[in-house]
Amino acid sequence: MKPTAIATGLTALPASLRVTWNDGTAGEFASIWLRDNLPEDRDAHSGQRLVDVMDIPAEPRIQSARLQADTVTINWQGEARPASIPLAWLHQCATGDRGRPELQVRRWLEAAGLAPQRDFAVLSYAELGGAASARLDWLTRLLQDGIAFLRGVPQREHAILEACAHIGYVPETNYGRVFDVRAVPQPENLAYSDRGLGLHTDNPYREPVPGFQALHTLLAAPDGGDSLFADGFALAEHLRATAPEAFRILSQTPVPFLYQSAGADLYAERPLIELSCTGAFTAVNYNNRAIRSLRLPVPECEAFYAAYRAFAALLREPKFQMATRLEDGDLVIFDNRRVLHGRSGFASARHPRHLQGCYLTRDSVYSMTAVLRRQLSSGSRA
Amino acid sequence: MKPTAIATGLTALPASLRVTWNDGTAGEFASIWLRDNLPEDRDAHSGQRLVDVMDIPAEPRIQSARLQADTVTINWQGEARPASIPLAWLHQCATGDRGRPELQVRRWLEAAGLAPQRDFAVLSYAELGGAASARLDWLTRLLQDGIAFLRGVPQREHAILEACAHIGYVPETNYGRVFDVRAVPQPENLAYSDRGLGLHTDNPYREPVPGFQALHTLLAAPDGGDSLFADGFALAEHLRATAPEAFRILSQTPVPFLYQSAGADLYAERPLIELSCTGAFTAVNYNNRAIRSLRLPVPECEAFYAAYRAFAALLREPKFQMATRLEDGDLVIFDNRRVLHGRSGFASARHPRHLQGCYLTRDSVYSMTAVLRRQLSSGSRA
Repeated sequence: MKPTAIATGLTALPASLRVTWNDGTAGEFASIWLRDNLPEDRDAHSGQRLVDVMDIPAEPRIQSARLQADTVTINWQGEARPASIPLAWLHQCATGDRGRPELQVRRWLEAAGLAPQRDFAVLSYAELGGAASARLDWLTRLLQDGIAFLRGVPQREHAILEACAHIGYVPETNYGRVFDVRAVPQPENLAYSDRGLGLHTDNPYREPVPGFQALHTLLAAPDGGDSLFADGFALAEHLRATAPEAFRILSQTPVPFLYQSAGADLYAERPLIELSCTGAFTAVNYNNRAIRSLRLPVPECEAFYAAYRAFAALLREPKFQMATRLEDGDLVIFDNRRVLHGRSGFASARHPRHLQGCYLTRDSVYSMTAVLRRQLSSGSRA
Repeated sequence: MKPTAIATGLTALPASLRVTWNDGTAGEFASIWLRDNLPEDRDAHSGQRLVDVMDIPAEPRIQSARLQADTVTINWQGEARPASIPLAWLHQCATGDRGRPELQVRRWLEAAGLAPQRDFAVLSYAELGGAASARLDWLTRLLQDGIAFLRGVPQREHAILEACAHIGYVPETNYGRVFDVRAVPQPENLAYSDRGLGLHTDNPYREPVPGFQALHTLLAAPDGGDSLFADGFALAEHLRATAPEAFRILSQTPVPFLYQSAGADLYAERPLIELSCTGAFTAVNYNNRAIRSLRLPVPECEAFYAAYRAFAALLREPKFQMATRLEDGDLVIFDNRRVLHGRSGFASARHPRHLQGCYLTRDSVYSMTAVLRRQLSSGSRA
């Protein structure tokens, strides 16, 4: 564990506070921000803030501040009550360390040379239910890489739910909690056929798009039916670097997606490349089976198709795809908003390939990881 | 039912097709779009597209086209197979009618004068399980207005799940499928206290943020504990009109939200006003209890707080709030990404106010509505 940095300098202005530490860290904090983040305005039990931004002065001003052992004490102009703010917390804010290594995305563009066992997190089913540290490591790498594998999951129906109980929550959708991926006559979804499926993300017509997808191989096909994976964020970044206009169009054009069956009618509009308000990647949505007819004036329509093809061409390049064979009892889980998946075709008449799949809510997997880390960390301190 | 429009004119260019109808509709369709949307490239059973955009020519060119009774037939340059496209479908594309009235958002800014029974959809529990047409109307108005009410839901625990079975899917979260809203000592969440709660949206720390929230009153407090609602989209639009710089800041600054309890650790960053890639409102995220410490340089931090206060001030204005009393057996359901809710405080020692709540996945409510409309429409045609 790192030694605690010691605060060595303090500069108080009316509108801000500057603190320096002996490890070289320096932080400047606006008075309004300090006033809004006082520990005494948080509920002691839940940690939730008890005041609204309208309950504090619009422009709080610092009268004086002084360093103490573990806190900095602030006197506010026009307020009787001084505030004590923990220095350790200010140090953490100043370094920007959120203490969540799982948020550090590790991209993998050239995927053809990658193999699950060597390049991604692989755990046996027994290990998943065993030591918490192995599970935390596996979960953290799942979130960083967007994909991870389990081996030896029991080959019985719904064993996938037993495995996912260690990973997150499985929501119910029109496909049920668990769906069977095998070739059936007249499938409602082409996934339930023996066709090869190009790289895609699942259910872009859904809101929310499933956060994670798990697929459990109950019975592998003796030949064909191999699985393909690619990192959509790495591919989108590659498109941004090599074809910026295509990237711009795909991130700014909402595309309609539709799925209809007897019991469901799902419609959503979203761009193929979804960005956050700061331009970070939020999701890649790519599913040629479900993309609906986009209506645009002819010139924009032609520009969209050119961009769409540029992205589709990347997705077809073998060098960007990891091909791997899922054996009986293997389970793969991946971030369905980031990692594209596909499969080669197989002969369903001769081979009864059977996978079961389910989705997991995004936050539940991140929460499971953070809770596990907190438990391990408090255990190691005890 | 409207009479079918008759196609009266056709202009075929190599790169586009123009069709006019006798109801005044005119549509121009890019060749690449037509080629990508051929009915024969769709699976007859599932309606899913069988070809990838890379499977069709990059620049398909029309050689000739001719009108027939119900279709337009196109011959492509360099391709042997002609294509037949239904005119009714082209007409629908040309008018832009998605046939989904629930997507037409109806905003309500000045809410103080509004009342559930008069201004929103209210249905009895018996009606919810009765005629499909009444349920479709109620669901459609729920989606347009962002809020709707049920009366007379049985006052027994988990009756909310029986009601929601008619509305959508209820996911499991760390709060369970159903959560109890009543005052308890040392609550993990301040919602489970007797405090008043300002207008807020639930769980901005979650991904996905819950799409809809339902609250069922098992036992109303004799005094206090009134419910407050406001239309976040209308308020955000009002902010855009009156304080554009505040709007810009709030829609472009990701804010950290956090919730921690014994079994959960949920963290997400999102702006207070979320926009789609075309600038449409996606969500309002507002929860002073869960907003975490935003780290920004001092000038940006001060600008953010000024914007935050401008929005918070709107949320405090009584004229933008509908206050209503939920009686025993009442159930309210609202779009949690759009409609803010709150409550006045109540005295928990004397009055055992008890609500049960749950969330519903966003797509399931829209799907339920669309399937119901499809069923009613095919019934009326039969």
